[in-house]
Amino acid sequence: MSQPLKHVVIVGAGFAGLSAAKELARAPVTITIIDQQNHHLFQPLLYQVATAALTPAEIAVPIRHVLRRQRNAQVLMDRVVDVDTYAQKVMTESGRAVSYDALVIATGARHSYFGKDHWAKFAPGLKTLNDAFGLREKILMAFEQAEIVVEYDPEAAKRFQTFVVVGAGPTGVEMAGAIAELSFSVMRDFRRIDGKQNRIILLEGGPRVLPSFAEGLSSRALRDLGELGVEVRTGAMVTDIAAGRVTTNQGDIAAETVVWAAGVQASPAGRWLALPVPNSGHVEVDATLRPAGLENVYVIGDTAMHKADGVVLPGIAPVAKQMGIYVGRRLAKLARGQVPSKGFHYSDAGALATIGRNRAVADIFGLKLKGLLGWFIWGAAHVYFLIGFKNRLFVMLHWLWLYLTWQRGVRLIMHRETGGTGKDIRTPS
Amino acid sequence: MSQPLKHVVIVGAGFAGLSAAKELARAPVTITIIDQQNHHLFQPLLYQVATAALTPAEIAVPIRHVLRRQRNAQVLMDRVVDVDTYAQKVMTESGRAVSYDALVIATGARHSYFGKDHWAKFAPGLKTLNDAFGLREKILMAFEQAEIVVEYDPEAAKRFQTFVVVGAGPTGVEMAGAIAELSFSVMRDFRRIDGKQNRIILLEGGPRVLPSFAEGLSSRALRDLGELGVEVRTGAMVTDIAAGRVTTNQGDIAAETVVWAAGVQASPAGRWLALPVPNSGHVEVDATLRPAGLENVYVIGDTAMHKADGVVLPGIAPVAKQMGIYVGRRLAKLARGQVPSKGFHYSDAGALATIGRNRAVADIFGLKLKGLLGWFIWGAAHVYFLIGFKNRLFVMLHWLWLYLTWQRGVRLIMHRETGGTGKDIRTPS
Repeated sequence: MSQPLKHVVIVGAGFAGLSAAKELARAPVTITIIDQQNHHLFQPLLYQVATAALTPAEIAVPIRHVLRRQRNAQVLMDRVVDVDTYAQKVMTESGRAVSYDALVIATGARHSYFGKDHWAKFAPGLKTLNDAFGLREKILMAFEQAEIVVEYDPEAAKRFQTFVVVGAGPTGVEMAGAIAELSFSVMRDFRRIDGKQNRIILLEGGPRVLPSFAEGLSSRALRDLGELGVEVRTGAMVTDIAAGRVTTNQGDIAAETVVWAAGVQASPAGRWLALPVPNSGHVEVDATLRPAGLENVYVIGDTAMHKADGVVLPGIAPVAKQMGIYVGRRLAKLARGQVPSKGFHYSDAGALATIGRNRAVADIFGLKLKGLLGWFIWGAAHVYFLIGFKNRLFVMLHWLWLYLTWQRGVRLIMHRETGGTGKDIRTPS
Repeated sequence: MSQPLKHVVIVGAGFAGLSAAKELARAPVTITIIDQQNHHLFQPLLYQVATAALTPAEIAVPIRHVLRRQRNAQVLMDRVVDVDTYAQKVMTESGRAVSYDALVIATGARHSYFGKDHWAKFAPGLKTLNDAFGLREKILMAFEQAEIVVEYDPEAAKRFQTFVVVGAGPTGVEMAGAIAELSFSVMRDFRRIDGKQNRIILLEGGPRVLPSFAEGLSSRALRDLGELGVEVRTGAMVTDIAAGRVTTNQGDIAAETVVWAAGVQASPAGRWLALPVPNSGHVEVDATLRPAGLENVYVIGDTAMHKADGVVLPGIAPVAKQMGIYVGRRLAKLARGQVPSKGFHYSDAGALATIGRNRAVADIFGLKLKGLLGWFIWGAAHVYFLIGFKNRLFVMLHWLWLYLTWQRGVRLIMHRETGGTGKDIRTPS
């Protein structure tokens, strides 16, 4: 490199960014980690916050707290708006220009509506605590609204008791299963509405659920979903989403609550770097996780598109973590003037998805696990990867409580503005 | 009464309303309990949510869940907009008219700015989970903002590190102590700002803190506050509050975060009932907790003004609970055609206030307790009065964790709208 590697700027404190920062703990560099949130979020359990099983604090930890003992790291809570790769500066919303010798971009992805962004209003996705919080509110309010209108408008009540999840990847499957368990467990607390009217519909454009899993696990997941009362519709293409209605190539569905788990859109990193990117926004990177032509910029995690043996790596936590560790180690060597390691290699430990209590499918180290065993593996793996002993402890306690009592402990509706969301939300649409 | 007492409508599911409902569990009546929230809130611990010690779910429980086994009770999540005492109907926001034979109004109170409502924007109070949530965000953001601006605008940083609490009643004292502990405990996670710049200022118009407590306990609380680093200013009258500034008769204070704990305003029950009420909005009730001239309407809890031996009862949980129980029993008797009980009598068990770890003052059953002992009594009493085993368990665990690690577990900032609150909040004002 032209100048010595002294200051590393990492944008984004998800699995990828945080792993890179930790890997640099003993390297002769200073690190500035910039994130628009103050917390690292354990996204794999976000759907449990959205379905009132866990509290936000249990799956999130302040970034400063994670790095409090890493003296060469400082955290800046700010939003990046642009990058000047010539001057080697990162521009932030608060007006700072942060210089870097090496830049690591790990800003993740948001959900994508394939150009139909007006669907977002009716079919929110699940990427941030705020998303989960809003979705939890929407799901819980649906039952309250049904209880209010059921007598004078049974059709509206049915609409409020119908939940549609679009996309049957791991997130969609977990979401559908969790909504099913939630909707049937809260029924005993209501007096007027009928639990039999609850419908949870999972829409998948492809031929099977969990397309990234082996056939056998897909069909097991399908069976588990059926046993939980989830209606699965494969080959179902969503053509339109509006207030209270989802239109598909298989007909209309009247539903007030729609969850989007169908597609993702990478962060605007490509624009910041003035690189050509596909519609998905992903930035293509080489074996060293750098975009072509940028000497000291790395793009990792869900923002990156990296082909391993011609196959694009999926946007999942293990890939992000391993990319972060790779870049951290590479930069540590460069800072010490050593020869950097070879290209990035992803070691695939497999995949897990839970459908509900005692139900999960796992494909790890070649082993195909189902049912209770898969479920235990799933739980153990997720607790293990949580950051912070406290969160591990409280998540396990919460799960134990939920398992023994069937009671979802976090059924809170907190209207953002008194009268605001409250009013709108309570007026049947 | 003209017609038999069959249907009781209770508005508000706080301590007063919920106690009344439970007391009627075995009475030959049906109960409709209406609340604009879906949860009963344990307000005495709300300040701990605002200071990142507890999660919202730990001090709130769905009203439906509390009453799930009480078959004669149904819950309606709706907002009351008016009452027709002639037709004996309650009008709600969703357009219903709920008939009643007896009406119990327990709608509590909000904070009052003594006519200076424009102060609310700069000095939020603490009554709902939403209030606590917003305040937590504001307090945590203040440190983040200070960290961002400290280098190029030290004065602004000082402003962000200064916290003013207005009013030194129990809520104000507990808030000030908790902010002090929070602000000093998070400092180790920051790299630039200096903890010595943190200032917590408690303003009290009267001559001493905790005016409702005995002199000795007041002075002990004052000493405890001092040891926590809280600056207490008595005889301080707030004359104006604006962005970044509090003006008092003792001069200006530059502070970005101001908490209002000075006054309360009863709910609009008086207007619903077309009764003359004082500025505070409280509805004066007789010995049977009914407003003059209304045969079958009861007003209880913080909404009511009840003089016991010429002294107005304070707006605290024990008073609300006992009023609810009294009205519940009275209505049960009336429903059974029995002679109702005599007038309401409040049995005063005393008062408690905590200042911080190992520090509290208690005046119970004539005993004056301080320090560690008072603190244990305070904690035990609060856990005891929490509703639900789960919440008791999790609150105790959280407190234990906090006690052992000094770590406030809930330091989450969740911008309501990405870019929205986030942007505004991050631009130094």
